[in-house]
Amino acid sequence: MTSTAQDAYAALIAHVRKTATLSTTAGILSWDQEVMMPSSAGAVAFRGEQMAQLAGLVHGMATDPRIAEWLDACEADGELTADAHGPAAVNVRELRRHYDRSTKLPASLVEEFSRTTSTAKHEWVAARKAKEYAKFEPWLAKLVKLQRQRAECWGWPSDGEAWDALADGYEPGLTAASCAAVLNPLRGPLVELVAELRESSTPPSQAFNEVKLPIDKQMSFVRMVVTRVGFDFDRGRLDESAHPFCSGMHRDDVRMTTRFQENLLNDAIGSTLHESGHGMYEQHLPGGEHVGTPYGEAVSLAIHESQSRLIENHVGRSESFWRWCYPLMRDHFGAALADLSFEDVYGGANAMLTPSLIRVEADEAQYNLHIMIRFEIERALMRGDLTTADLPGVWNERYREYLGVEVPDDAKGCMQDIHWAMGAMGYFPTYTLGTLHAAQFYETAERDLGGLDSDFAAGRFDRLTGWLHENIHARGSAYLPADLGELVTGKPLSAEPLLRHLRGKLRAVYGLD
Amino acid sequence: MTSTAQDAYAALIAHVRKTATLSTTAGILSWDQEVMMPSSAGAVAFRGEQMAQLAGLVHGMATDPRIAEWLDACEADGELTADAHGPAAVNVRELRRHYDRSTKLPASLVEEFSRTTSTAKHEWVAARKAKEYAKFEPWLAKLVKLQRQRAECWGWPSDGEAWDALADGYEPGLTAASCAAVLNPLRGPLVELVAELRESSTPPSQAFNEVKLPIDKQMSFVRMVVTRVGFDFDRGRLDESAHPFCSGMHRDDVRMTTRFQENLLNDAIGSTLHESGHGMYEQHLPGGEHVGTPYGEAVSLAIHESQSRLIENHVGRSESFWRWCYPLMRDHFGAALADLSFEDVYGGANAMLTPSLIRVEADEAQYNLHIMIRFEIERALMRGDLTTADLPGVWNERYREYLGVEVPDDAKGCMQDIHWAMGAMGYFPTYTLGTLHAAQFYETAERDLGGLDSDFAAGRFDRLTGWLHENIHARGSAYLPADLGELVTGKPLSAEPLLRHLRGKLRAVYGLD
Repeated sequence: MTSTAQDAYAALIAHVRKTATLSTTAGILSWDQEVMMPSSAGAVAFRGEQMAQLAGLVHGMATDPRIAEWLDACEADGELTADAHGPAAVNVRELRRHYDRSTKLPASLVEEFSRTTSTAKHEWVAARKAKEYAKFEPWLAKLVKLQRQRAECWGWPSDGEAWDALADGYEPGLTAASCAAVLNPLRGPLVELVAELRESSTPPSQAFNEVKLPIDKQMSFVRMVVTRVGFDFDRGRLDESAHPFCSGMHRDDVRMTTRFQENLLNDAIGSTLHESGHGMYEQHLPGGEHVGTPYGEAVSLAIHESQSRLIENHVGRSESFWRWCYPLMRDHFGAALADLSFEDVYGGANAMLTPSLIRVEADEAQYNLHIMIRFEIERALMRGDLTTADLPGVWNERYREYLGVEVPDDAKGCMQDIHWAMGAMGYFPTYTLGTLHAAQFYETAERDLGGLDSDFAAGRFDRLTGWLHENIHARGSAYLPADLGELVTGKPLSAEPLLRHLRGKLRAVYGLD
Repeated sequence: MTSTAQDAYAALIAHVRKTATLSTTAGILSWDQEVMMPSSAGAVAFRGEQMAQLAGLVHGMATDPRIAEWLDACEADGELTADAHGPAAVNVRELRRHYDRSTKLPASLVEEFSRTTSTAKHEWVAARKAKEYAKFEPWLAKLVKLQRQRAECWGWPSDGEAWDALADGYEPGLTAASCAAVLNPLRGPLVELVAELRESSTPPSQAFNEVKLPIDKQMSFVRMVVTRVGFDFDRGRLDESAHPFCSGMHRDDVRMTTRFQENLLNDAIGSTLHESGHGMYEQHLPGGEHVGTPYGEAVSLAIHESQSRLIENHVGRSESFWRWCYPLMRDHFGAALADLSFEDVYGGANAMLTPSLIRVEADEAQYNLHIMIRFEIERALMRGDLTTADLPGVWNERYREYLGVEVPDDAKGCMQDIHWAMGAMGYFPTYTLGTLHAAQFYETAERDLGGLDSDFAAGRFDRLTGWLHENIHARGSAYLPADLGELVTGKPLSAEPLLRHLRGKLRAVYGLD
């Protein structure tokens, strides 16, 4: 290894860690705004100024031309990056990707895109409220045009398409073709399963989702649950916010939020377990010198989502989990839960909501069909196979076909999500890819460890989480998402494990065995 | 006004507001660390990195050499600063002071001072724990030497002394001589009053400070009290922390903390009212274009303290306040307070703690004697009239003389406060100057408005707070502290109003009328 490359690498890493430190400062301000900040208009406006200032400073550091020089020097030295999954190679690989993505767009396009999404978000809010897609459509059309321009600047593989360039920002290496290759085989069987469950004459009881429980007791209960599952409160927090989220400021300062409604303890447990899956990933990323470097970061949105879905669904909706949780819950809430049987609770945690119109309210099975519809539509928009004018018709038709539901208006239809309005295309599939990874990881963990259900029934989660720490969390960004999945499970990502999981559990819950 | 001066002033203000924005970001991180951050060693260390990074960025902006050029251009234009109390003149005056103070110290001295205080703080903790002043003394000696060097760099008026240069950083215009001129006349009468009260055979009941009350009910009660007094929770927060404080991030985002112990509702009410006095000052500073400029900031520590002491003592320890508060308190806490009479509560809120050894636990009367001892000692240290070796002897002698108390060891004596160890000399007197300003402001408000006691007894505080907003808060830094006091009250600051207040109230509470 040349001393030039060594010096360049050291300078690059020092610079990148400084950039990350400032970026986490913005993360604290953002968390504070969602969770703590007074809601006065003055506070909101001033926080906007603070965030814009930090964004400007971070952008300046992230696009510093010295980064290109350092990267060139590092890449010229084969020895430095000889171990493709070692810190140096991974950092150079990821920093090159970040730097190129940050610098390939002309400033005029960055500005126009930022201005357009800013307005489009407001227009989306107004159009959604008025249930008038026609008001939003010109903005979406403009955004699709700008997304194509951005994709052109970034470029995509010769056998690929424009959508790939957008997706790569969320999920390194993801292409529309590879995405379709795992989602398409899921669609038919899932539509069939959902229809079968919907027709069941013995659906689970909904009593669990009707009982009212005091919020403060719900908070102390979910806190106990996620502590037991393995979230470390000495290195993290749990608060309330309008939409649950998890912010990893640093592996020793991971902050989750959740939400409560009196009659939705089930939702609070599911949401908090979901966020604790994200949180434990952040808490067990590579530490020390890797903090603030790409190697020490979560590798992708789908892998992040795999951790939250695994804890939410494979742990938190399992029969064995409820064998442990149900008696504790009865003790904790006392008389209020006296009439709920085990079957009410376990069934209620796995009941489908029908008709299923809204993605964020969807259950474990139907959720993925919501995602597929979005993926198919945004891919068609980017290819030019679908115009924004024709979008609502296609949307409603797919909802009828996949979910057996009539969309009453565009507010409950194609305008339900903010993602496209805020400029996020290529993002939706990461939710379902994460769910697929979760099922495949969980099957592998059970194969490797055995007896996880006995663990859960005894309130023991450490063997599973230890496996996740070792196989996924501690690897940071060492492997690209698809490679990580294959390394850990021995197979490429497929729809089968999720289908096995859903069929096995839900058919029993719906009395169809 | 020349366009050069106008342009320079505009550039200066834009730069200063950006600096202030970044500085408030550091304020959020600091608040977060005290109130929200997980306490893991990793989180603490990383927060240190974040804070150091922001401090470096802010320092770079605050010492930007362009500031000198802009200030020169502004100062050369008589018209721009013609109105001595208008925004332009005030901003130029204060920015000149800040800039000169920031740039007059050589970097080597700044570094040595920072390194020394950092170690001295640790040594102070250890020496205090071991009750061994001898271990701390060499560090204090070194700090006194460095403080003299800093003072030399900053300079002081020809008729002044080195202490003045330190005090000016906290209280613009304050000198040891002017400070002594108001504190000395306070000493004798206060020592006399305290001795008289101590000898009373009919001291107030301490029952209020013995009853145990649940913390969550204390929190909801003090929140109700400070809301009623006028702290705006749409533009602020109240949380818990080890030491109560108030951070003004922005006038629309003001955050107070308080502390609770089961048997100290009295302390919680007093502490929270104290912080709400600071908080209301911050919430009513000049807004709009003045945010982030010196004109829009609180003028000094003593004026800030006057607002907290006024609300804590003149409102919150008054008989009329308790006429309103006592029945509400009985309703709120129910049976737990059934045995407390009005006299128990009002008396308990005004009872002296004897012997009074610890400043932060001291009552309204004795507190100022603690401060005087520190002022006299730090002034003597800076003049070279006292060596650090002789400090404990002098300390203990003054405590005997002023407070009638024997100091058992140096941990409860001259090592009780962190201020000197952290490099804050010239700071202590601002506490008592604030208390004096509070008494003088309150007398003036009562003279201007009349009937404040009837207001308080009816739970009405808006006439008083309106007067404070108009006369003090909205003036920001338009007037230097001493000038502001004289402008509002018509007289130079004196000890008389405080003595009248303390004698009038405490002699009655102690049955000496």
